[in-house]
Amino acid sequence: MADEEKKFTDVNELGEFGLIDHVTKDLPHFQVSSVFGVGDDAAVIRSSRGTSFLATTDALVEGIHFDLTYTPLAHLGYKAVMVNLSDIYAMNGTPTQILVSLAFSSKYTVEAIEAIYDGIKAACKRHGVDIVGGDTTSAPRGMMISITAIGQVEQKKVTYRHEAKAGDLLCVSGDLGGAYLGLQLLEREKQVYLTDENAKPELEDFNYLVGRQLKPEARKDIIDMFAEAEFQPTSMIDISDGLASEVFHICTKSKIGALVEESKVPIHSQAEKLAFDFKLDPITCALSGGEDYELLFTADEKDLEKVRYMTDVSIIGKMVPADQGIRLLSSGGRLHTIKAQGWKHFQSPSS
Amino acid sequence: MADEEKKFTDVNELGEFGLIDHVTKDLPHFQVSSVFGVGDDAAVIRSSRGTSFLATTDALVEGIHFDLTYTPLAHLGYKAVMVNLSDIYAMNGTPTQILVSLAFSSKYTVEAIEAIYDGIKAACKRHGVDIVGGDTTSAPRGMMISITAIGQVEQKKVTYRHEAKAGDLLCVSGDLGGAYLGLQLLEREKQVYLTDENAKPELEDFNYLVGRQLKPEARKDIIDMFAEAEFQPTSMIDISDGLASEVFHICTKSKIGALVEESKVPIHSQAEKLAFDFKLDPITCALSGGEDYELLFTADEKDLEKVRYMTDVSIIGKMVPADQGIRLLSSGGRLHTIKAQGWKHFQSPSS
Repeated sequence: MADEEKKFTDVNELGEFGLIDHVTKDLPHFQVSSVFGVGDDAAVIRSSRGTSFLATTDALVEGIHFDLTYTPLAHLGYKAVMVNLSDIYAMNGTPTQILVSLAFSSKYTVEAIEAIYDGIKAACKRHGVDIVGGDTTSAPRGMMISITAIGQVEQKKVTYRHEAKAGDLLCVSGDLGGAYLGLQLLEREKQVYLTDENAKPELEDFNYLVGRQLKPEARKDIIDMFAEAEFQPTSMIDISDGLASEVFHICTKSKIGALVEESKVPIHSQAEKLAFDFKLDPITCALSGGEDYELLFTADEKDLEKVRYMTDVSIIGKMVPADQGIRLLSSGGRLHTIKAQGWKHFQSPSS
Repeated sequence: MADEEKKFTDVNELGEFGLIDHVTKDLPHFQVSSVFGVGDDAAVIRSSRGTSFLATTDALVEGIHFDLTYTPLAHLGYKAVMVNLSDIYAMNGTPTQILVSLAFSSKYTVEAIEAIYDGIKAACKRHGVDIVGGDTTSAPRGMMISITAIGQVEQKKVTYRHEAKAGDLLCVSGDLGGAYLGLQLLEREKQVYLTDENAKPELEDFNYLVGRQLKPEARKDIIDMFAEAEFQPTSMIDISDGLASEVFHICTKSKIGALVEESKVPIHSQAEKLAFDFKLDPITCALSGGEDYELLFTADEKDLEKVRYMTDVSIIGKMVPADQGIRLLSSGGRLHTIKAQGWKHFQSPSS
């Protein structure tokens, strides 16, 4: 027995969420200012009486999250900021500062780094956010952009993932599946280009979807609308990994179930059309596609009238007791259990 | 002229500091809470009346900042935290929270990530810092750990790089050059091991130096001592790139010069001995070696009596008017101009 070989565990056995849970479980807190740590879109750090800071970090890695064959560098910088601001909005907060950590190989020129920063600056200007720090370092290969966003929020307005309750309405902003389908299109045209350098990419009919993939916009307008309507969601999360995964997070953290109605899930007409071209089911793209950076939130039933008429917001289902599980009511009237995703989309060659 | 080929600029033409200056010059600030942005050890963000948050980010990249041939994973996690806490202390602040962004290839097992987190947690426990967030993602190759540290400081205690003045004393904590020489030793033993797998590494006589490289300790004790002595430096910076580079930063930002006395620069006896073995000049190791994570600070002349008897603090020179430049008075009595370093140490295969 003493000679038994030590067993090592492949990271994919745990998956992304399993690994994070595993290494961050039972983390002690030494600081009274740490109101909420790992396990939501952003950490909540008490500042003065009644207000808190929010902090979140997200990295984009070349070869995993982006392919420079079809990603303009300025778009990349813009997106790297947006995915972080989206996490601050998902806490019902206002982003105020970012720090940019950039590691890149010698194949990148000063002009390339300038282009990335042009995108970063454009994103910051649009959202009134300041670049207050960062780190610039070389890497043996490729590029990684890791951004930390800091925001502010009134303590009583903080919207977590864990406070949804059975009976709440399940709502989402914008439309879903578009970013994933935009990626499929870019990948297809890349393959065509690799076969024939003179081929012209056929992107015109699907400009909206390409934009959803390359230049997502964090939904500040939705948070502003909430404030104006004096509406506060009971829970909220941004859609980075796909609807299924985010519904799963809210349900798990809130210890309840959900019923999503397929016919209510907002899907853009271009997405419907392109999914058809690719022989994909549009609802599958919405559930598992990811990178839409829309806001998924739950609303108390008493707020139905506020939510019902909100611009660009759809009520797609309701929260139910835990024993009813997390299910999709298909347009055909059948009930399907929804499974969480996670690292899975990292294994696909297309993302 | 219209057909002239577009010229691209190699990043090394600007160097690390040049590139950062280039992309971050004239950054607008939209938020009143952004007290100080890019250009010091950490950003200063106003929280409540009289106190500010500090935020800083630093990344360690495999193949650039660490070599897993001789770096235990737990030490790596520990160091990744320390280099960030050091930046918070260098603002005269107290670190309170960190966010950890980890990107790694499939060669890393769950046990490897656990070991890194063990080091991260040990560092946090020692300094009373909470892990409040992060991002875990796959990478095509290698590993990168990007950490953001958040801290707090009374606004009137913030110690910048730009407020040193001619006549101030130049002081440093601990001893210098050790981390660099520890790295040279580890590199030498790695080469021996690559030639003969049965060779035993000869590290015993230089344990201190190996520890300086693999497991640096951010100088919380120095900041605590300042508070106890009711002493505030006029400027401060941590030594990550070597004494020369850090003196240069303080001088440039404060628009003054400096005179460093070689004979006063603290160098450990093991470092003296090993430098001799490697046919290196110990003062060169101290000036250009880097990674010592000691604190370099300036003190008003009126504080001479406070600083003179501080434990583990050396007065190594003084600040002078700008027109006298930045110079080293050698033990032989000759004056040498000190040049800034930067990315240079990244080009060496040994770091």
